[in-house]
Amino acid sequence: MAYAYMQNTELGIALESYLKEIASLCVFPGCEEIDVCDALGRYTAKAVFAHISSPHYNACAMDGIAIRAKDTFGVTDTTPVFLKEDVNFIRVDTGEALPMDFDSVVMIEEVVELGEGRIKLVTAASPWQHVRQIGEDMCAGEMILPANTLIEPASIGAMIAAGVLKTNVKRKPVAALIPTGNEVVKPSADVLPGQIIEFNSSVFAAMLKQWNVDSKVFDIVPDDLCLIKDTIIKACEQCDLVLINAGSSAGRKDFTEKAIAEAGKVVVHGIAIRPGKPTILGIVNGKPVIGVPGYPVSGAIVLEKIVKPVIDFLAACEPVRRPTLSALLSRRIVSSLKYAEFVRVKLGEVNDRIIATPLNRGAGIITSMVKADGLMEVPLNEEGMEAGTTVDVELYKRHDDIKNTTVVSGSHDFLIDAVSDIMRRKNTKYSLSSSHIGSMGGIIAVKRGEAHLAGIHLLDEKTGEYNTSYVRKYFPDGNISLVKCVKRIQGILVASGNPKGIKSLSDLRDNGIRFVNRQKGSGTRVLFDFLLEKEGIDPQSIEGYDRESYTHISVATLIASKSADAGLGVYTAAKAYGLDFVPICDEEYDFAVPEEFLKLDRIDCFMDIIKSAEFRLALDFMGGYRVDKPGEIIRFR
Amino acid sequence: MAYAYMQNTELGIALESYLKEIASLCVFPGCEEIDVCDALGRYTAKAVFAHISSPHYNACAMDGIAIRAKDTFGVTDTTPVFLKEDVNFIRVDTGEALPMDFDSVVMIEEVVELGEGRIKLVTAASPWQHVRQIGEDMCAGEMILPANTLIEPASIGAMIAAGVLKTNVKRKPVAALIPTGNEVVKPSADVLPGQIIEFNSSVFAAMLKQWNVDSKVFDIVPDDLCLIKDTIIKACEQCDLVLINAGSSAGRKDFTEKAIAEAGKVVVHGIAIRPGKPTILGIVNGKPVIGVPGYPVSGAIVLEKIVKPVIDFLAACEPVRRPTLSALLSRRIVSSLKYAEFVRVKLGEVNDRIIATPLNRGAGIITSMVKADGLMEVPLNEEGMEAGTTVDVELYKRHDDIKNTTVVSGSHDFLIDAVSDIMRRKNTKYSLSSSHIGSMGGIIAVKRGEAHLAGIHLLDEKTGEYNTSYVRKYFPDGNISLVKCVKRIQGILVASGNPKGIKSLSDLRDNGIRFVNRQKGSGTRVLFDFLLEKEGIDPQSIEGYDRESYTHISVATLIASKSADAGLGVYTAAKAYGLDFVPICDEEYDFAVPEEFLKLDRIDCFMDIIKSAEFRLALDFMGGYRVDKPGEIIRFR
Repeated sequence: MAYAYMQNTELGIALESYLKEIASLCVFPGCEEIDVCDALGRYTAKAVFAHISSPHYNACAMDGIAIRAKDTFGVTDTTPVFLKEDVNFIRVDTGEALPMDFDSVVMIEEVVELGEGRIKLVTAASPWQHVRQIGEDMCAGEMILPANTLIEPASIGAMIAAGVLKTNVKRKPVAALIPTGNEVVKPSADVLPGQIIEFNSSVFAAMLKQWNVDSKVFDIVPDDLCLIKDTIIKACEQCDLVLINAGSSAGRKDFTEKAIAEAGKVVVHGIAIRPGKPTILGIVNGKPVIGVPGYPVSGAIVLEKIVKPVIDFLAACEPVRRPTLSALLSRRIVSSLKYAEFVRVKLGEVNDRIIATPLNRGAGIITSMVKADGLMEVPLNEEGMEAGTTVDVELYKRHDDIKNTTVVSGSHDFLIDAVSDIMRRKNTKYSLSSSHIGSMGGIIAVKRGEAHLAGIHLLDEKTGEYNTSYVRKYFPDGNISLVKCVKRIQGILVASGNPKGIKSLSDLRDNGIRFVNRQKGSGTRVLFDFLLEKEGIDPQSIEGYDRESYTHISVATLIASKSADAGLGVYTAAKAYGLDFVPICDEEYDFAVPEEFLKLDRIDCFMDIIKSAEFRLALDFMGGYRVDKPGEIIRFR
Repeated sequence: MAYAYMQNTELGIALESYLKEIASLCVFPGCEEIDVCDALGRYTAKAVFAHISSPHYNACAMDGIAIRAKDTFGVTDTTPVFLKEDVNFIRVDTGEALPMDFDSVVMIEEVVELGEGRIKLVTAASPWQHVRQIGEDMCAGEMILPANTLIEPASIGAMIAAGVLKTNVKRKPVAALIPTGNEVVKPSADVLPGQIIEFNSSVFAAMLKQWNVDSKVFDIVPDDLCLIKDTIIKACEQCDLVLINAGSSAGRKDFTEKAIAEAGKVVVHGIAIRPGKPTILGIVNGKPVIGVPGYPVSGAIVLEKIVKPVIDFLAACEPVRRPTLSALLSRRIVSSLKYAEFVRVKLGEVNDRIIATPLNRGAGIITSMVKADGLMEVPLNEEGMEAGTTVDVELYKRHDDIKNTTVVSGSHDFLIDAVSDIMRRKNTKYSLSSSHIGSMGGIIAVKRGEAHLAGIHLLDEKTGEYNTSYVRKYFPDGNISLVKCVKRIQGILVASGNPKGIKSLSDLRDNGIRFVNRQKGSGTRVLFDFLLEKEGIDPQSIEGYDRESYTHISVATLIASKSADAGLGVYTAAKAYGLDFVPICDEEYDFAVPEEFLKLDRIDCFMDIIKSAEFRLALDFMGGYRVDKPGEIIRFR
């Protein structure tokens, strides 16, 4: 049903036919005259020529005297020349105009003063020495900048020096941003269930600003064909292009296509990209009108891959492309043959190789955009890419910043964010990037060379010891260290006041308590399964045993919002959400790190932080931690 | 005398001691709370945490019905389940809140409608399917960004989604720009000799803007110690750092050092860099105060090499460094042992090598800043660098743009600017860069691989033919072509109305006529010397024979401004300046181009332009040209 009326046009073909229509039907932004001082970053609309020469007069380039050079021809130590002030010479300072009928400047240091306006020179001067002649830099009428040229600070200086105070530049395009939807509300921290916070227009406006486009954000329009159509028509009068967000799919409440079709014409609906398929490319009253899908990641991708080329075309500018980098794909990506898929990736420089790890591909996951270091494409007609493939990644961050990033993988703990924040506060060179994929995930990531450090808390069910046996098992060749970090308290998180009266794990069984579990491979899940087995509790007797959450904080969130009644997690999470906490046991949270990384400056920075007083203070503030010798290194050869 | 009181401190040492003093004496800009929507490009002052979860409710991710998953356990085609509306299911749309006590969404496509509020399902649903659970993206209390982090469009979206509408960011530093000097006047095209147009503060403000620093430009202060000191003190109250331009040397009218010393303290005066030596680093009332030299190139270098590090230090930001590139130095650079010299270079990709050609090193030549593609350094204690040395160049332009630039060297003609402008108007991908070093200079540049094309008009005195014999002589191995371009008229440029009554070259002799010549190696100089010899005129009988100018237009400028009476040049220059013109002869202006370059796309673009109607129109407008078969290629094997 959905998408029934959509095409699935290849991106390149869709863009080509759209730009062709724009070329024949649309009004281009044109140009405007502005003050040269305001012209930084703009493009000249036509060639700029000097109005006056620079220097605009013959200027003395030294403090000294102006003379006629021919008066000194043949002068030497033994045959000096004597000159009279205001007749044969005039005193001048740097920057002064060379007096008429004089053609040379002698530095004051070379002048022998004889008093009473008379001086002696003992070296010959050449004509035009120490004179900046008229037009030395630029001559009136000379071209300073050709058309279509970026105006930089120096060009502003050159124009002003040449008497050009106003200049014709290409007008910045203005984009109309029209948010739509009955359920969509203005940004607020006080929203009701079912209300969707409208933040796409803020993201789009910021992206457009980076591309030198101004935005005009319209009020949120309800899902009403007439209102949407009227707003489009009004926006087309005021702006150079129009983005409607969203209603661009083909569902019951999707009016965007119809509104564009009734007000003008739809060129393409449905593009073979993911995310971003339900995109509409239309033209209304000589302006490009684009229906942008509503999920934030879809919207951002459509802006980058479709709106940006349209803007470059409207502005007739050579597009600035992001730098690209070759990287090794760390995990397999499965993709549909039917779409070109754009995948956001985290990049890490580990062992001098750049490793690209795909981020959450959900179109609604904004944080995947915040965490992304780059974007890669799985082309149309490919089913995916294998781990180990070399891929081209378009860089969102600077290569240097990626080189200075410590990549932490593994179990989630609040202390990782604390380290990240302290790192940035102490030293702006280094950053920390973390992904929460559970303790076992972290160990695998370090083994694969995707991460520098794995945060782990893995209980050996046989010995009751934490972490060491796992490190020994998964790194049989050694060259791995365990960096001791904290002891933390695990327990059952329950709503404030413990309304269900949960006192132990056995209370979770068969009494209508909605449990939320952690994902397989997480240290907390390992612990939970160990405890259940020890106490002889059947997992299937626990409602929600299969409901998986990825972090301590997300477990706490579900309990705080009454979507679940209990979950296993650390005290810190309970404290952060004001939940009650039933302590179960202490555990050790450490970092596994390959021996060779301990030599890296960025890992030094990490080690310094976990040993610091600042870090202990942060742990105290969060609560639930005990530290013994943080930063102690246990080596496994 | 000048510089008598200046030190010559090494740049690194000067900066180190200055930053140390700033650290102990200065007030840092601190932070401010702003709307998240305005935060693009700013840095977080402290970590940002989510106020609410995103989604902030369990949201249906499909249009369909909300059910309790356990009602469908075991359901198959043959054992369907029948559900009743508002009891066992509720109809929902994408984005709506999942109703309380329901835990799963079934897509409308899978629902078999039976009428009267009853439906049938034939597949089991799993709990939480098609539901975006609370906090799936971010949980309340979770860290979104650590401190000291650049805010990008996606971060703005994430903050708003998490209910964070205002955020603490580092305050942008504000720089005071104080222009000084009795002779300095506000920008205008209507200035008197001796008046210096103040454009440095516009250049500095634009550079600072690129570094995220706001500027406050003060009125021009006369050369008066008290006024300068008072303005510094006032500026220190209003701004985070102060730049005084200029008076930073140690001359008679240089008050900047004294003003800083009296108002606060001078840390360093005189830095071992060129240009930029007369720089003062001081501190007044807890603010860095820097005396910046007055020549525009010196000022810009001091901003890049000294002010920028100070700003990075004040802002506690990791400096963004320009990319660098290895290039081959095309010409020898002679430099003083006493200074680190920063040399602006033109870059050209010729034969897959990047060639760096030093630009005019005059500190007053603004156009060298406009033309520069990059900056290289000749270190302290080196006497210079030989041609052919591999040098590191800090890039001002993008590498791609350098690759798409056609490098033209050789004789100056207005038509080169016309081609450059048409090229930018036709196609924003390609650019043309030109240096005017005379016909012979152009031939040498092409031979050295510094340029793609040489614009030449070289008369063979024996045959009276243009260009061909030179190309044969200088490219004995062939593989060179001559691209025919225009015939143009050379003659004597004289003031309007020809007040000196000049009718021929012989009139230039010994009668008080101030001639201005072209530089050796230029085609016009070759022609002039040929004509003088032919007519038996002694060069030394011509006043100004040794006064050399580098372009037709600069000759015209000197005559128009009455600094000279006559010069040899093309009709176009006379027409542009409204000068009278005594025609002498026709000549041929062509381009020498190595065979292999004719295959390059960018040279194709050049060739298309010189064959175009647009180019002919430009020639007609400028006047003095005749074209026969422009673009015709004569090959020399």
